[in-house]
Amino acid sequence: MINQIILGLDIGGANTKAALLQFTDNQITKSFSYIEYFPFWEKTLNEIPKMLKRIVLNIVKKNNYKLNEIEAISITITAELSDAFQTKKEGILTIFAALSKVFDTSKMFFISNNNEFINFERANLESSSIAAANWVSTSLFLGRFIPNCILIDAGSNTIDIIPIKHSVPIANGKDDISRLMNHELIYTGGLRATIPSITHFVPYKGSDIRISFEKFALISDVHRILGNITEKEYTNDTADHRLKSLENCYARLARIICMDIDSIKREDLNLIANFIYEKQIELILDELRAFVDSHRGFINEFEDEPLFVITGLSAEFLIRKTLKKLGYNNIKTLEEVTNIPDSITSSAFGIAGAFYYQLNNE
Amino acid sequence: MINQIILGLDIGGANTKAALLQFTDNQITKSFSYIEYFPFWEKTLNEIPKMLKRIVLNIVKKNNYKLNEIEAISITITAELSDAFQTKKEGILTIFAALSKVFDTSKMFFISNNNEFINFERANLESSSIAAANWVSTSLFLGRFIPNCILIDAGSNTIDIIPIKHSVPIANGKDDISRLMNHELIYTGGLRATIPSITHFVPYKGSDIRISFEKFALISDVHRILGNITEKEYTNDTADHRLKSLENCYARLARIICMDIDSIKREDLNLIANFIYEKQIELILDELRAFVDSHRGFINEFEDEPLFVITGLSAEFLIRKTLKKLGYNNIKTLEEVTNIPDSITSSAFGIAGAFYYQLNNE
Repeated sequence: MINQIILGLDIGGANTKAALLQFTDNQITKSFSYIEYFPFWEKTLNEIPKMLKRIVLNIVKKNNYKLNEIEAISITITAELSDAFQTKKEGILTIFAALSKVFDTSKMFFISNNNEFINFERANLESSSIAAANWVSTSLFLGRFIPNCILIDAGSNTIDIIPIKHSVPIANGKDDISRLMNHELIYTGGLRATIPSITHFVPYKGSDIRISFEKFALISDVHRILGNITEKEYTNDTADHRLKSLENCYARLARIICMDIDSIKREDLNLIANFIYEKQIELILDELRAFVDSHRGFINEFEDEPLFVITGLSAEFLIRKTLKKLGYNNIKTLEEVTNIPDSITSSAFGIAGAFYYQLNNE
Repeated sequence: MINQIILGLDIGGANTKAALLQFTDNQITKSFSYIEYFPFWEKTLNEIPKMLKRIVLNIVKKNNYKLNEIEAISITITAELSDAFQTKKEGILTIFAALSKVFDTSKMFFISNNNEFINFERANLESSSIAAANWVSTSLFLGRFIPNCILIDAGSNTIDIIPIKHSVPIANGKDDISRLMNHELIYTGGLRATIPSITHFVPYKGSDIRISFEKFALISDVHRILGNITEKEYTNDTADHRLKSLENCYARLARIICMDIDSIKREDLNLIANFIYEKQIELILDELRAFVDSHRGFINEFEDEPLFVITGLSAEFLIRKTLKKLGYNNIKTLEEVTNIPDSITSSAFGIAGAFYYQLNNE
């Protein structure tokens, strides 16, 4: 009986997610996850290694493991796009420097957009191939369980749509811009999206009101008001740095049309929240339809309906709802397919799991 | 010969503007202005009186006046909408408290949305009538020079469109929400507007790319790239807290489609900047057209073409351009009509001038 322990890290611009997987004889026997809201644009350079040390404390030490027991740390980075860095290369190299202060460089492996893991040395030379490749690892992990499907990972900030064939991603785009172009990446999500990024107008008293551009509210306020997320799932900062209570969500939403909770009724705000939600669904629906159009050949290969596997914090209220509107009902969750314990940190499980399988089975 | 000195203050959410006017025998004989970028949402309560004291230092003392020589301080407030305050009332009362620490309350007068100035005591009781009434004072001031016209004040954040008849504003809306509804207030401007509040797509390599919702760039970057504003006129904070150089404006704009200046050419970014500018013009054009439709009776009263008087930082590149597209060519600037020295602080001149004329001529 051999135990192998893999730590997976998904270092995003707003959240860093970690998953620790213990494999015994090719089976996951233990798993743990941890998420920290760590917005790079508000941080200084020396806070990055500190954050990584907190990750080690919370997911390794608190679960009674030692760092040197961990066989490998498999990593994906999307934080390089943060405007904490002037260029993506600067971002990647800064994060590499922080990682090497906390982890043994010989144990680190990075997923590349060529569907393979590369070591620290090579990653330093090919930083552009490992930027924003988190969708690759989740796809490879899922591909182990279901060879042909469409993975949709809908998180707090972005939605990845990835066609998987013969167990590997066959996306048309490799980097952010080509993925945006091919409708394989949508820059919207369940928590941090701003309201004007979804709609320029909201209804009030029978009129369409052009809203303010200020970051008065976020989509997390809308989804909290509508009950799509719990207060605990509202993990991002609020727009006004006040509480996440319903009262405060309503107060923030009121400001988008220059009102306050003294002057607008909750029922009017509920109508506005519903309207914004519908607009977000519409936006995703447009992108999904464009995705289907440009991947028609692949979609037609499914005997019956194409299979969609969904994950991420916003999977149910953003994706399942949109797929059903499009008439797709063959939907599974990544959690039920792969047996990982939760959807919020699925990308961290994905990077750990994908690495394990590459290490042991290929 | 009597000298009367009036200090006008326009306390906005992002900028506080001040104008000092010296009148001699009913004529403006000296004038000074001062603007401070003071974003309320980043400030603590005790910084407000400090900011007001800096205003006094910079516009009163530096110009060799004493505070007790000033006959009146006429004030308009729009900062109450800032999410520094939970409600507008809280905002107004907080700013009142700060004002009373710096100025003699018996000398303070506030413009109300009923076209009159009210004293400190009454303003405390009627805070909602003085919230966001800055457009009233500029209209009353302009009305002294031109009795019938349409004033358009296009600043860094918002655009006011105000019909003036028989020297007084005859707007359909009185507060922010009714003014938004009546197309008399547009929440967009030349500096702080976010890109997704203007367009959800930009062109790149022949595709329409759905952009990121992150505050990676601001419209000030677009207008700086296009030469609509100088670096000195770029008075707001940058989105990434980096420099206002052209290089940095391009870097910020690149991020809206998840790129960086290593990967996208300036000529592609110029196309994107032009597209966003056109979209902002389109947005204003739609609102102006709706304004004209709902004020048709008033517009038709002009013998020939209606007269538009424009002011504010964005008057030329946002408003003159849009009016010409709509076929309106009878355009004057507030500066040429009233002889105030600059357009950026025109609202502060307006509040000071309007108060003087009410005090002396009515």
